Amino acid sequence: MINKLTDKIKKLNAPVVVGLDPMLSYVPEHIQKKSFAEQGETLAGASEAIWQFNKEIIDATCDLIPAVKPQIAMYEQFGVEGVMAFKRTVDYAKSKDLVVIGDVKRGDIGSTSAAYAAGHLGKVTVGQKTYAGFDEDFVTVNPYLGTDGIQPFVDVCKEEKKGIFVLVKTSNPSSGEFQDKLIDGRPLYELVAEKVNEWGAGCMGDRYSYVGCVVGATYPEMGKALRKLMPNTYILVPGYGAQGGKAEDLVHYFNADGLGAIVNSSRGIIAAYKQEKYARFGAEHFADAARQAAVDMIADITGALEK
Amino acid sequence: MINKLTDKIKKLNAPVVVGLDPMLSYVPEHIQKKSFAEQGETLAGASEAIWQFNKEIIDATCDLIPAVKPQIAMYEQFGVEGVMAFKRTVDYAKSKDLVVIGDVKRGDIGSTSAAYAAGHLGKVTVGQKTYAGFDEDFVTVNPYLGTDGIQPFVDVCKEEKKGIFVLVKTSNPSSGEFQDKLIDGRPLYELVAEKVNEWGAGCMGDRYSYVGCVVGATYPEMGKALRKLMPNTYILVPGYGAQGGKAEDLVHYFNADGLGAIVNSSRGIIAAYKQEKYARFGAEHFADAARQAAVDMIADITGALEK
Repeated sequence: MINKLTDKIKKLNAPVVVGLDPMLSYVPEHIQKKSFAEQGETLAGASEAIWQFNKEIIDATCDLIPAVKPQIAMYEQFGVEGVMAFKRTVDYAKSKDLVVIGDVKRGDIGSTSAAYAAGHLGKVTVGQKTYAGFDEDFVTVNPYLGTDGIQPFVDVCKEEKKGIFVLVKTSNPSSGEFQDKLIDGRPLYELVAEKVNEWGAGCMGDRYSYVGCVVGATYPEMGKALRKLMPNTYILVPGYGAQGGKAEDLVHYFNADGLGAIVNSSRGIIAAYKQEKYARFGAEHFADAARQAAVDMIADITGALEK
Repeated sequence: MINKLTDKIKKLNAPVVVGLDPMLSYVPEHIQKKSFAEQGETLAGASEAIWQFNKEIIDATCDLIPAVKPQIAMYEQFGVEGVMAFKRTVDYAKSKDLVVIGDVKRGDIGSTSAAYAAGHLGKVTVGQKTYAGFDEDFVTVNPYLGTDGIQPFVDVCKEEKKGIFVLVKTSNPSSGEFQDKLIDGRPLYELVAEKVNEWGAGCMGDRYSYVGCVVGATYPEMGKALRKLMPNTYILVPGYGAQGGKAEDLVHYFNADGLGAIVNSSRGIIAAYKQEKYARFGAEHFADAARQAAVDMIADITGALEK
């Protein structure tokens, strides 16, 4: 799957991923109204609205972008019905040949991580049959529990040719509270980065490992250092746009081959119609606004890379 | 909710929680057969089997124990249908007046943690209405992202009078890889423990904070030190039994009042009928075996505490 992701990024010249993190407040009135008319102001109605919203965004951007990253928290907030909308979104995106990165940030002790890995990337056996539960292509994973919390994901990645992105340095303001703490003179996130190299060494694609990492766009100096520390690791970069990360800061997250990083934008794309810049599209044409925002983001990042 | 948990532990003299972490292999043949006959060898069939299994365990133990801890990974492995079984389990346990600790180990950047907190502990607004998605009483939370990943959970806990358990020192073999690393001479898990104190200071129940922590039974020396460092924090203790933690080692996880810790056992209770010790019950009476194992565990731990 890392090969597919890399190939799609090259072919489209678009090292970007659209974060499908729909707050209900992003969903235009006309979609909410229609969904509530059908299913009431219920969890099912909200989930239907989010699914219809996602579907239009996917339809409007799938020829431009290599991947989408649904954030499962935004679905879990609507309970079981929300999780159904997550699954529909994953399946639909895959039917459009998009790579799906499930932003689930799971991680637990070994046997429990094995269940998460089976559920999100692998398969589970029921009697004589096997099924894939959520069946994303990649998931994000939290490293706090160490190797035996990660290894079950790596094992499933090898079996299924899928991938993970391990949190190394996150984009949020207080990420430094623990991640930046010095251990023998080096920040914790560098220790995690070294482990990412180890975990990924046994499952290389053509050029990059099945084991990627997450480094926030909001910490460009650290991104630069981490790029060098993990030469074979794809970096998933959240924090561009709404969180403050700028294209010129992100150049150093890439390798000399122009690959090695994929930049996420969520709100900046999916709720573009709410920005002054894209207000001309109007709420009815929110998906066209999202497409234009994706075009602009790709140009912004590839422009910075070409310099 | 921390007051309810404390009161129930006192009343029952049972500082234990039963982990509802059903692998399909734990579910006796007769339940699997019945579920598969009704729903086929499908994800729905597996989820039905797990739900029926949980229901019997809950019925057989709910007068003995204060709380259950369903591990959501074991449900997510069966996809959306599995998540439905998780929700049924949460609701049924609550209907039996059990405190429900959702072992979900969530944690993300602020706005995303807010969605998790709303979905698992709080409420979400849909049009003019509000709904609780999963509605557990407590959830477990991962601290790697720092304060702004935790605060949204704390805010919801205050509003809803619910609680969280923050991972401090986990029970697995490689937990030390990052958690034990020394920062200015002190292990990372102690820094997290200090933050747990800070996060919990503003939301105290009668005696203990709404913000608890997780410290594995498998590291008793660390448990002893952490107990002193967090005097007002309830400690959720996984790792007893199957993972190797012993009752006499756990005495120091408690305060002098005999409170302050709640010990989890999963496999050791719910799959007790597979142990030689409880084989006399047979698979048909797995729930009676679970009840006996719970009785024995309570005696083991309260016995050690009385010494």
